[in-house]
Amino acid sequence: MWVFEETLADGSLLTKTINERHENTKYLPGYSIPENVIADPCLRSTVADADLLVFVLPHQFLRTISRQITGVLKPGARAISLIKGLDTQGNDIRLITDVIRETCLPAPASPGAEVVPMSVSALSGANVAHEVAAGQFCETTIGYHHTTSLSEALVWKALFNTPVFRVSCVPDLAGVELCGALKNVVALAAGFSDGMNQGGNTKAAVMRIGLLEIRDFAARFYRGIRHETFFESCGMADLITSCVGGRNWKVAREHAATGQDLASLEQTMLNGQKLQGILTAEEVYNFLSARGLLHSYPLFTAVHRICIGEIKASDMLKHI
Amino acid sequence: MWVFEETLADGSLLTKTINERHENTKYLPGYSIPENVIADPCLRSTVADADLLVFVLPHQFLRTISRQITGVLKPGARAISLIKGLDTQGNDIRLITDVIRETCLPAPASPGAEVVPMSVSALSGANVAHEVAAGQFCETTIGYHHTTSLSEALVWKALFNTPVFRVSCVPDLAGVELCGALKNVVALAAGFSDGMNQGGNTKAAVMRIGLLEIRDFAARFYRGIRHETFFESCGMADLITSCVGGRNWKVAREHAATGQDLASLEQTMLNGQKLQGILTAEEVYNFLSARGLLHSYPLFTAVHRICIGEIKASDMLKHI
Repeated sequence: MWVFEETLADGSLLTKTINERHENTKYLPGYSIPENVIADPCLRSTVADADLLVFVLPHQFLRTISRQITGVLKPGARAISLIKGLDTQGNDIRLITDVIRETCLPAPASPGAEVVPMSVSALSGANVAHEVAAGQFCETTIGYHHTTSLSEALVWKALFNTPVFRVSCVPDLAGVELCGALKNVVALAAGFSDGMNQGGNTKAAVMRIGLLEIRDFAARFYRGIRHETFFESCGMADLITSCVGGRNWKVAREHAATGQDLASLEQTMLNGQKLQGILTAEEVYNFLSARGLLHSYPLFTAVHRICIGEIKASDMLKHI
Repeated sequence: MWVFEETLADGSLLTKTINERHENTKYLPGYSIPENVIADPCLRSTVADADLLVFVLPHQFLRTISRQITGVLKPGARAISLIKGLDTQGNDIRLITDVIRETCLPAPASPGAEVVPMSVSALSGANVAHEVAAGQFCETTIGYHHTTSLSEALVWKALFNTPVFRVSCVPDLAGVELCGALKNVVALAAGFSDGMNQGGNTKAAVMRIGLLEIRDFAARFYRGIRHETFFESCGMADLITSCVGGRNWKVAREHAATGQDLASLEQTMLNGQKLQGILTAEEVYNFLSARGLLHSYPLFTAVHRICIGEIKASDMLKHI
């Protein structure tokens, strides 16, 4: 496994610590990593012989790493993305799996042969990392491209499925990815609702309206979307975990309850890290605005307008 | 509005208090009732001239009141049920709206003419009463029979819809009713999960599996079921409010956390009132058992077996 090398507080290297202690002491302390998993700081050597590539990284680094590995990958290698987010270029929204497919190219099968892009799937679900690491029962969804066969997904299912990490496969790659990214916007809305001291009825309504906007957005702009996907772990279940906890929900709740602006809350509550939901809400807003479709997504629109201070969180319900 | 007459602690009559104070001081204290709503202790005089009948009562009293009003109702009157529950006769499960249709008969339009049963719809959603009374924003779902036209439901929508009580209509009466009744079984499962200190992943998985069992149960045994119904307020939204609060969830959580048996908890936490979810779980278990289909509904089955002490709450996840 490639690990971005860091020097820890005690002066040791992160990869060395992982390989000696079989624990990621910085990012997931307290949980052991199997001994057959080796942390390697060299990206190219890690990926060169891999048949199966699992992408797990903050999506803003994706294009940097793709530049390093393209042409090094084995012909016939496949990839799966565990990244939750979207890639934007101007007012356009791209799926992370599309970016991987286009920018992480295998070597040609023989010198001069055509380069065949990788098959890329996605995994998303109600999978809070430390609960998964603790072995608590959960489900997840693997989305594979609607034009490929189930056998593509079954390779990944064989790799990930366990009795306490239950995998379902759906031929709806875009649906699975969009759920993972857009649920953060809905989590902000749920946080605003809770911060306003609205009860369970209102919060459930906000979550439901949010899920329908995710579904509508997916069906309008992507191919192969299936309604069934939104009943999977990547859909309603991930939405639930994100809206009853998680960073987006928590910071949004604090904003609505105290009136402190979101940027300051990112400073105090997240040490300056940016909230994924705020970024995604802006990307979706720009995308919809450029197409004259803001009115069809009142909740997404209201969340962005609250994030930029254009309307108050307490007015959200008037706008959805 | 008919109100079952009671003598309050101060010796006054409940109907008289409601009509004088415009407040139900016993069952919904603190919220005013519009002055044009008159509490009447006489059932027959209340219903005799009604064009629209709204049924809101604990379902175990339904057959008693139907005996009093059948034949008194106006020809052409319509009904809507706000009752959440099922009616059982032996191992058979009946919808409350079917019981209303069959047992609450109008008078014939003219002497000797055939009696035409009422059209009966159902309303269900994430509608915790005191939050609705407080004017908090919420949604609800009106289900009308799949063989009737939307105009039937629009009469009810005109009656109930407000800017903060947003009504959707679906031609799936059985789906709406079954969501309202069966979600209580899932709320018990969610409570067991929380009582075992499982995290958000596990609870979301339990809720999702529960919703799919509700949907599967509905589609297998009833006509006119639409997948879309489970995305409505009566479906996922009501499930969410029930699984993050509510009596079933709370008592089940206490049981799993402390090991106290459910009957004692009903005594101490609910003054001896019976939990709807426990009754429904038993009814569903008997219904499925008689048809040899328990294996298709592992969560419903596990909940009942926990309720009767056959398996432990801590073993629930092994069974679903």
